Amino acid sequence: MSIRDLFVTELAVINLGVPSFYEDLLRQGQPVIQVDWKPPAGGNQEMVAALEKLETVREKIEAGNREAFQRLSEAHPYLEGIGTARDLIPGLGERMLLHAGPPISWEHMSGPVRGAIIGAILYESWAQSPQDAEELAASGGIAFSPAHEHNAVGPMAGIISPSMPVFIIHNRTHGNYAYCTLNEGLGKVLRFGAFGPDVLERLKWMAEELAPALKKALQLSDGIDLKSLMAQMLHMGDEGHNRNKAGTSLFYRIVAPLLLKTDLAPKTVRRCLEFIDSNDHFFLNLSMPACKAMLDAAVGVEYSTLVTTMTRNGTDFGLRVAGTGNHWFTAPANYVEGLLFPGFTPQDANPDLGDSAITETCGLGGFAMAAAPAIVQFVGGTASMALEFSNLMYQITYGENPVFTIPALNFRGTPTGIDVRQVVELGLLPVINTGIAHREAGIGQVGAGLVRPPMACFEKALSALAESI
Amino acid sequence: MSIRDLFVTELAVINLGVPSFYEDLLRQGQPVIQVDWKPPAGGNQEMVAALEKLETVREKIEAGNREAFQRLSEAHPYLEGIGTARDLIPGLGERMLLHAGPPISWEHMSGPVRGAIIGAILYESWAQSPQDAEELAASGGIAFSPAHEHNAVGPMAGIISPSMPVFIIHNRTHGNYAYCTLNEGLGKVLRFGAFGPDVLERLKWMAEELAPALKKALQLSDGIDLKSLMAQMLHMGDEGHNRNKAGTSLFYRIVAPLLLKTDLAPKTVRRCLEFIDSNDHFFLNLSMPACKAMLDAAVGVEYSTLVTTMTRNGTDFGLRVAGTGNHWFTAPANYVEGLLFPGFTPQDANPDLGDSAITETCGLGGFAMAAAPAIVQFVGGTASMALEFSNLMYQITYGENPVFTIPALNFRGTPTGIDVRQVVELGLLPVINTGIAHREAGIGQVGAGLVRPPMACFEKALSALAESI
Repeated sequence: MSIRDLFVTELAVINLGVPSFYEDLLRQGQPVIQVDWKPPAGGNQEMVAALEKLETVREKIEAGNREAFQRLSEAHPYLEGIGTARDLIPGLGERMLLHAGPPISWEHMSGPVRGAIIGAILYESWAQSPQDAEELAASGGIAFSPAHEHNAVGPMAGIISPSMPVFIIHNRTHGNYAYCTLNEGLGKVLRFGAFGPDVLERLKWMAEELAPALKKALQLSDGIDLKSLMAQMLHMGDEGHNRNKAGTSLFYRIVAPLLLKTDLAPKTVRRCLEFIDSNDHFFLNLSMPACKAMLDAAVGVEYSTLVTTMTRNGTDFGLRVAGTGNHWFTAPANYVEGLLFPGFTPQDANPDLGDSAITETCGLGGFAMAAAPAIVQFVGGTASMALEFSNLMYQITYGENPVFTIPALNFRGTPTGIDVRQVVELGLLPVINTGIAHREAGIGQVGAGLVRPPMACFEKALSALAESI
Repeated sequence: MSIRDLFVTELAVINLGVPSFYEDLLRQGQPVIQVDWKPPAGGNQEMVAALEKLETVREKIEAGNREAFQRLSEAHPYLEGIGTARDLIPGLGERMLLHAGPPISWEHMSGPVRGAIIGAILYESWAQSPQDAEELAASGGIAFSPAHEHNAVGPMAGIISPSMPVFIIHNRTHGNYAYCTLNEGLGKVLRFGAFGPDVLERLKWMAEELAPALKKALQLSDGIDLKSLMAQMLHMGDEGHNRNKAGTSLFYRIVAPLLLKTDLAPKTVRRCLEFIDSNDHFFLNLSMPACKAMLDAAVGVEYSTLVTTMTRNGTDFGLRVAGTGNHWFTAPANYVEGLLFPGFTPQDANPDLGDSAITETCGLGGFAMAAAPAIVQFVGGTASMALEFSNLMYQITYGENPVFTIPALNFRGTPTGIDVRQVVELGLLPVINTGIAHREAGIGQVGAGLVRPPMACFEKALSALAESI
């Protein structure tokens, strides 16, 4: 057809991208089809160049991602016991506190992280009053380090101090370990920045009665297969981040008879069980280190563009990628949109916080929301939105987990192995569901909701990957 | 338009019903629209007449159904304790056995029911060998009566003998009670017709250690709110008939600390907890009497066309309707289509059996399968089929349960209050998911699947309702 014919023939238009052209033609009564298309990386030339450069080593990247995904899929975490942080966590010094997210100094820390640090200092008796604790922390007398750099994770502020009890998780396939504290419950708790006497008293009881009892019980088992429990909980309406009700129940069913096999007094056993029963999030602190243990197996796989860490310290969001090892890609953390507890307003909320996005990094949490439609009552949204989130996440992930399946998607494996390239190319960010801390120290949780990481983290990672080849 | 014009004008056809007319026109290239339509009651003139007669008292029926639905919705069952059948169940004589389904004589009973009766006779020591037990049962020396006529229900064969322990369920809104035995587990168990020494030994242990222990524990509670547990389990992938894993877990979490408050030895507590933990169907025998207690509140509401009982004795299916009180409408039971355990064939299967369809009658089980997509791994089918079943059941039910909601349907209430009129008019039968017993006595469960009641029960009920006005 010659160009001249265009003006005499009846036209049928297919419009790619910008919908206003489509709408104009529609208004003029022209036959037109709209194709939902966006330029790669939103047209960002630097990113397009990085993607093109990576394209030149496509096969090496594919091999790396296959290897990283396989390691992640084959990792098999077991709960093997409970111990004290100082005895177990590599590199945890005597005057050091581990925290959630990428590295951060005291002066840049947000309220809830400072609050949790004050609480931990009081808990360790390094200071006798909140004022003294704050002064000590600000003076440089305490070293701070990301839990993620010590084979550990912690929800929200994620503070781990040397004398806290921690779960010992062992990836029996690859031999690596992960550690996490025990979950305190919701509301006014250390991890949300509260540090009142009730908070410290609960932590003491957990260290003195709960942890030793569970330790004794676990010594009578051959290790609890967390991967199996997590596969089951996905069939029971949990997604392993903000819904752990089934996981907590299944753990409870395993641990109760073990506790009864010990020489512990029935009263002690009962107090421990009642504590676990009172907190449907108890399993979160097992789900998280299980995910950490699985993802750590993929750290350092050359050329892999798959994400191994997504985490937040309440100020910055931090990303790490298999092919770039322990390097952090950071950007300011976003605010969470969701449901606030009665009496709080959006102005009370701290930016996104916690290592718990390790669950999304592993294909659970927001990625597995289709398995947990009831979660929208806690984080907001509708059940169909939960389904849609999971479906979307397949677009930015390498594969499907062979063990973790979603019944509502006809048992499709969870979307697993976030590929930095796909995130940037499609402009489609991971979905994270998460708790919301009050922005001030000492208050605690104010709600829960949904959040996306800053795209800048993924762009920085993509640039670094491109530069490294 | 005159009839003559038909032959000169271009025609656009809308075809109602029988699709072959539509397909013919389609093949001839004619523009045609197919409307999926069936004549009411499949064109059955007797049923159409019955429906028309009921139409004359439409308002009275509407008032009756509103009342029956309200009673069903407002009923609130609690587990209040455990006792012995003979002390609690009204009308249970000393040489009487209760069974599932509508009334039936020994000679018409199927293999698994006979097997369970033999087992119960041995359990009660009314005979010393299976042969003697069978002879005694056949001789008329034992009275048989439907559990449903004694405020009780039982899964599969549903045999309740005088010395068996039973759960005491109390509908605190309307004051009525319901009773059910404790669940034995799957496979070779009494309710599926097995009666070997291991079966009887387990029943003895349940009566001598488990039931007294749970009884003691329950005495320390104010009653366990079953309605709340059932609402929660629907958010955790259970539907209360063939999936009770979450319900069992939640019950376990409540009962473990109670057991530990008693003076029972830790070993006893542990054995009880391990038994419950070993059987994800334990909660079925609480879900069933809870449904029974709720539905019994609607029995006898004048003019109501809502179903109060659906049940099977392995030979016949039995239906009861609120407006016709205790009258049974029966027809031969269907065979179940589903997944058989390895080593069994469809020829091994007994027809549909058990009182457990009380869950579907109450809007759970097959009606709530959208809440439990993982169940298809046990009963067959796909997750989308599970969703479709729930959606279909809204067409034959009066309303939506205000407390039992289905997250995947954006928290829509379960389809509740089966209306005999809608079933017959639409030709749409309730969906029941259920266990499958071996057709011979002494073997046990061979699988699980899906089944529909015979339409004849609903037609008989509709006729009776029409005749009664």
